[in-house]
Amino acid sequence: MMEKVKKIKSGDVRTASRLIRHLEDGMAEARATMKHLFPLTGHSHVIGITGSPGAGKSTLIDGLVESFRKKGKTVGVLAVDPTSPFTGGAILGDRIRMQRHAEDPGVFVRSLATRGSLGGLAKAVGDAIHIMDVMGKDIVLVETVGTGQQEVDIINHSHTVIVVLIPGMGDEIQAIKAGILEIADIFVINKSDREGSSKLRRELMAMLDMAPLSSFPAGWRPPILKCDNAFEPDGFVKSLEIMSQTIDDHYQHLIKHDLLGTRVHRKSAVELNEAIKCSVLEPVLAKLVANGELECMIEKLSKKETDPYTLAEEIAKRYLKAK
Amino acid sequence: MMEKVKKIKSGDVRTASRLIRHLEDGMAEARATMKHLFPLTGHSHVIGITGSPGAGKSTLIDGLVESFRKKGKTVGVLAVDPTSPFTGGAILGDRIRMQRHAEDPGVFVRSLATRGSLGGLAKAVGDAIHIMDVMGKDIVLVETVGTGQQEVDIINHSHTVIVVLIPGMGDEIQAIKAGILEIADIFVINKSDREGSSKLRRELMAMLDMAPLSSFPAGWRPPILKCDNAFEPDGFVKSLEIMSQTIDDHYQHLIKHDLLGTRVHRKSAVELNEAIKCSVLEPVLAKLVANGELECMIEKLSKKETDPYTLAEEIAKRYLKAK
Repeated sequence: MMEKVKKIKSGDVRTASRLIRHLEDGMAEARATMKHLFPLTGHSHVIGITGSPGAGKSTLIDGLVESFRKKGKTVGVLAVDPTSPFTGGAILGDRIRMQRHAEDPGVFVRSLATRGSLGGLAKAVGDAIHIMDVMGKDIVLVETVGTGQQEVDIINHSHTVIVVLIPGMGDEIQAIKAGILEIADIFVINKSDREGSSKLRRELMAMLDMAPLSSFPAGWRPPILKCDNAFEPDGFVKSLEIMSQTIDDHYQHLIKHDLLGTRVHRKSAVELNEAIKCSVLEPVLAKLVANGELECMIEKLSKKETDPYTLAEEIAKRYLKAK
Repeated sequence: MMEKVKKIKSGDVRTASRLIRHLEDGMAEARATMKHLFPLTGHSHVIGITGSPGAGKSTLIDGLVESFRKKGKTVGVLAVDPTSPFTGGAILGDRIRMQRHAEDPGVFVRSLATRGSLGGLAKAVGDAIHIMDVMGKDIVLVETVGTGQQEVDIINHSHTVIVVLIPGMGDEIQAIKAGILEIADIFVINKSDREGSSKLRRELMAMLDMAPLSSFPAGWRPPILKCDNAFEPDGFVKSLEIMSQTIDDHYQHLIKHDLLGTRVHRKSAVELNEAIKCSVLEPVLAKLVANGELECMIEKLSKKETDPYTLAEEIAKRYLKAK
C-alpha cells in the first residue's frame, strides 16, 4: 500500500494508471489507497474546460499543454468522454491529438468513460484529479462536454472553469449560456473567424452586464477571449499564451482574495456527495443484483404487477436503518 | 386522491401540471398518487429526441406535433432543459415556439429542469411521461440535449429514439456518434442544406455498415432522414411527414416483432434504478443536512482533516442495515 503511494508521489505513470483503472472498476483496495493519497493533495491548479461537442476543446487543450510546458509547468490532462453506455470504453482512448506529448514525462493524459447507469463518473474524475495532484502535476486540465448536471458536478472539481463557445450555434445556446454563466471564470470564443463571432461576443457581454455584481467573486468579471485556429498558426499560439496567462491571473486572483477556500469547499461538497452515493447506493444495488431480485422486480414492473414507487419504498425499508 | 387520478384520466391540464410540479419538488403525497397512476399507463408511444444544442430539435418537434395532430393524434411534449444548477428553473419555460399549440387541447407541453446535485431528473421525466400517458396522449415527445449518462437514462424511457445531427460539427462528433449508435432508431440530418451534409450522411452510413447485424433489432437498420428547414417551407413540411411516418413504422416494427416488451423492460430498469436512488439516498442525505452534519463534514474535508472515502464508509455503516 505505502509502496504504491510512494510510487505515485514520485510520478510513476504505470502505478497511477493502474490505480485509476482499478478505481473505475470499483475495486475496494483502490479506494483504500485513496485514503492515503488524499492528505497529500492540494498542490495542483485544477482547470475545467467545458463546451459543446465540436467546439474544439481538444485542440485548445493540446495548445494549452504546450503553453504551460513552455513555462516549465508539469501538466495532467483528464478527458471525460461521452461514450457508449453499452460498450463502456473511452472511445477516443488517450486522445490521438495528445500523442505528440506522449514522449514528454511532464505530461500525463488519461481518459475516463461513463460507465453503468449508476454514474459515479464525477467521483472517478475527483479521484483521478487527486492522483495527478499527488503525482506532482502543477496543472490539471479536465475536459468535459455539455452542461448537464453530471458535467456541472465534474466541473465543480475545478478551481478555474473555462467555457468554450463557437459562433453560429442555434438559439438554444441561450439556455446553455444562462446555465453556465454561474460556473464560467473565463469564456473562450473558439473558431472566432466564423460568422456570428461578434454577435456571440456582444451577447455574452450583455449577459455579463445584466448579471448582479455579486456573481463576480471579488470583482472577477469573466473575460471573453477569442481564439482562431483555422488560418493563422501564429495567431493560435498567441491566443493560447493569452489564455494560459489569464488562467494564471484567475488563480492568483483566487489566492489574493482568499477565494481558493470557497472553491475547495465546493470541490469537497461535490466529492462527499459522490462518495456517499457510492457507499450507500452501490451495496444495496449489488445485493439486489446478486440474488437476482432486481431482475425479478423489473419483470414485475414491465407487467405492471407493481409500481416503482412501492418497490423503492420496500427496498428502503429493508436496507436502511430506521433511526 | 382518487379524485386526482380521475381528473388526470380525463386529461385535466391543471391537475396534471400541479402533480408534475409537486413531483419535481419531491412531495411525498405526489409520489403516492403515482402509485395509482402507474397501472393505468401503457397507452402512449413515447418518442425520445436528442442531439446537440443548436441542432434544431425544438423546431423539429414543433413540426412533428403539427404532423401528428393532422393525423388526429393527441400529443404530449416534455422538454428537458439544461438549466442553471443554481437558479433551478426551466429557462425556456414552456417553450416560446410551442405557443402556437397553446390553444389546442390535444397538445400538452411541459418543461422539466435539472435540480440539485442529486439528479433525479430521469425519474421526474419518467413520472411526467406516465402522467401524459394516463391523460390519454397518443404520442409523448421527450426532448433532451447531449449524450451524457443522464441523457441516456432519459432517452431510455422511450420506445423510439431519434438522434438529430447537423453538418459542420468538429470531429468530436465521432465520439458522440459512436455513443448514440446503440440508442438511435432513426437519424435525422437537420439543416441538411449546410455544407458537409453529404459527408455526414456517408459517415453515418459507414458506421451503420460496420455495426454487427445483431445491433439492428429484427432487422431494423436506423434510417437516415434529411430535413432542411431553412429555405423551403414545403420541403420542411414534407420532411416532417416522412419523419412522422417513419416513427409510426418503427412502432409497428416493434409491435410486429414482439420487441415492445424489450423496450418496456429497458424503461422499467431505468425507472426502478431511479426510484431506488430517490428512496435510499435521499433520506440519508436529508438527515445529514438536517442535523448540520453534512456541512461539518465538508469543512473537515476542505481542511483535509479526513477524507471522503472514510466519511462515506462511516455514513454507510451508520445508515445501512448490516444484512
